[in-house]
Amino acid sequence: MTSLDDLPIRDDLRGRSPYGAPQKTVPVALNVNENTHPIPEDVAHDVVARVAEAILSLNRYPDREFTALREALAGYLGHGLEAANLWAANGSNEVLQQLLQAFGGPGRTALGFSPTYSMYPLLAAGTGTAWIDAPRDADFELTAETAVAAVHEHDPDLVLLCAPNNPTGTPVSLEVIEAVADAARGIVIVDEAYFEFAEPGAPSALTLLAGRPRLVVSRTMSKAFAFAGARVGYLAADPAVTDAVRLVRLPYHLSAITQAAALGALAHSDEMLATVADIRGQRERIERELAALGFRPYRSGANFVLFGGVADPHAVFTALLERGILIRDIGLPGTLRVTAGTETETTAFLEALAALGSAAVAVDADTESARRSA
Amino acid sequence: MTSLDDLPIRDDLRGRSPYGAPQKTVPVALNVNENTHPIPEDVAHDVVARVAEAILSLNRYPDREFTALREALAGYLGHGLEAANLWAANGSNEVLQQLLQAFGGPGRTALGFSPTYSMYPLLAAGTGTAWIDAPRDADFELTAETAVAAVHEHDPDLVLLCAPNNPTGTPVSLEVIEAVADAARGIVIVDEAYFEFAEPGAPSALTLLAGRPRLVVSRTMSKAFAFAGARVGYLAADPAVTDAVRLVRLPYHLSAITQAAALGALAHSDEMLATVADIRGQRERIERELAALGFRPYRSGANFVLFGGVADPHAVFTALLERGILIRDIGLPGTLRVTAGTETETTAFLEALAALGSAAVAVDADTESARRSA
Repeated sequence: MTSLDDLPIRDDLRGRSPYGAPQKTVPVALNVNENTHPIPEDVAHDVVARVAEAILSLNRYPDREFTALREALAGYLGHGLEAANLWAANGSNEVLQQLLQAFGGPGRTALGFSPTYSMYPLLAAGTGTAWIDAPRDADFELTAETAVAAVHEHDPDLVLLCAPNNPTGTPVSLEVIEAVADAARGIVIVDEAYFEFAEPGAPSALTLLAGRPRLVVSRTMSKAFAFAGARVGYLAADPAVTDAVRLVRLPYHLSAITQAAALGALAHSDEMLATVADIRGQRERIERELAALGFRPYRSGANFVLFGGVADPHAVFTALLERGILIRDIGLPGTLRVTAGTETETTAFLEALAALGSAAVAVDADTESARRSA
Repeated sequence: MTSLDDLPIRDDLRGRSPYGAPQKTVPVALNVNENTHPIPEDVAHDVVARVAEAILSLNRYPDREFTALREALAGYLGHGLEAANLWAANGSNEVLQQLLQAFGGPGRTALGFSPTYSMYPLLAAGTGTAWIDAPRDADFELTAETAVAAVHEHDPDLVLLCAPNNPTGTPVSLEVIEAVADAARGIVIVDEAYFEFAEPGAPSALTLLAGRPRLVVSRTMSKAFAFAGARVGYLAADPAVTDAVRLVRLPYHLSAITQAAALGALAHSDEMLATVADIRGQRERIERELAALGFRPYRSGANFVLFGGVADPHAVFTALLERGILIRDIGLPGTLRVTAGTETETTAFLEALAALGSAAVAVDADTESARRSA
């Protein structure tokens, strides 16, 4: 049998593994930060009606410029944005890939602050862009000083700021983004995939776009919008950025069905986002209850919580999975990540974790010494 | 205002134009080789029903391995293929891009036989792969000798054979494909986007896959299958090739809606392909009538005809467009390309062209000398 090693794949791909969050059918799936609430029934009906209309002319190629969708996205984002500022693709991964193709590539570099979204280095590799991992501050925070120092040190062609950061949940202040945008010579991409879960009133990097043609804000409909299965990511930036992306995008990359479905969801954005406050409430509950169990939840502005203080992450992951609860071991020592689901799902997770008892909690050096001296 | 030139795009993209077949709303669109027959109503109903089902769980990510779709595609292709041999993406452009990412890239080369599908060099550029243009024989034909000589001369990492060839329509014999596959050291991709329009009984390159792990056959649902708006392309190859593609594909690149829609269409493949014989008949009619008008149609195994002997292609293109008929000026001197549409559309095209009179026909040197000596 022929194996991958027998084929003339690119040398830099040899030995690599594909992106592989486990896909398992379980009662409680809290592993990939979806909005676990199904989309409202009346919205589903409208989406179906629009898709049915699109299917009638499916023998024809779709609108390559997806103008109606770009207008709807601009309307949703506000901030004075227009269709010319918007671009969309099959998930924000494809948006990011297009940006790396246009502004990265061989001989160019992209900088991120590790641990961050695991697809960034893979997207860089796939486009021949060299990936630079810069460190974060304590507790995965990122200060303007740390970020700007890395930009000065590495002088990257692109900077990727995940705000809030996946997989740690860490919010990134506008001050940090502004400092990076002003310090960087190249393109600065602020990945706001989880932005809708931020505290109400928190300012988006969209407020910084005016006068900064090298700043790009990417978003997705896969998270708060409860539309992960439809694969719609998008960006807002200076119209010149969308012109650059047109040079590398595949013609007709967004299907007529995708365009119709996304338009349907955007026509009901209030309803689609109605669960966000609930989800934020469950996230806060997770943070509280995990702390009460002795774990160390990190600060989150997203719909998930990374928590440390886990004695044996793999054992806890497996014990939860045996109880039908799938969370995520992202490979950071002593941590696990859990998505804030519905109240029922969150309860199932917290009760199952509590049932594992204190053996699941790592004996922290500080706590231990405090206990000894007490 | 910021222009594209003000942004730090990759140097090799500077001055390039995006892929740009004109998208105009006209009564008779015969410019991008779609199947101009809408999909049958009962198939549309089944597709809508399946998509409606998928929309109910659109808050979740789709099956990243799209197993059901790969099984259905294998069933459609036959030839003993199984799901493990199949891979799909958003249009065959994305399939080809993934292959170039896995097997091409910086320092590697891809070879094609010009004139051929205009996206090949753009996909090569987008993945940092150097593109090599090798010439064809007279009348855009490609013999095994010519093809193998180019492979020996350039020793490419990938060869792209468009069979039948777009934009010329030229069929490629299995003998040529076999000779190239045996001569090439690298990956050989046979792009059978238009294969379903070939003469009944013509053998596909699928028959050559067994024992050739570096041979890949790509297909699309955009042409004969009348599903261009859904964006579904796919490949058949050794399972090791799909393993290679998994290293570069974007996670969840095929939406749940796309998977459901494609499964619906494949469940009715006989009905979806019922118009193919009609279309082939219209293509033969175009070839006959164009010749009778004094033009020089090239041999076609596809659903379109490239014809030479056009005095002023741009003038003819414009004159037809003024009559609501959109065909394609692909930039080959003295030629135009037209898609075989419905009988009504084909009649509209042929009558409008005939109405332009003999001024549209180039005075050919041979014809002219024959006339003089008569």
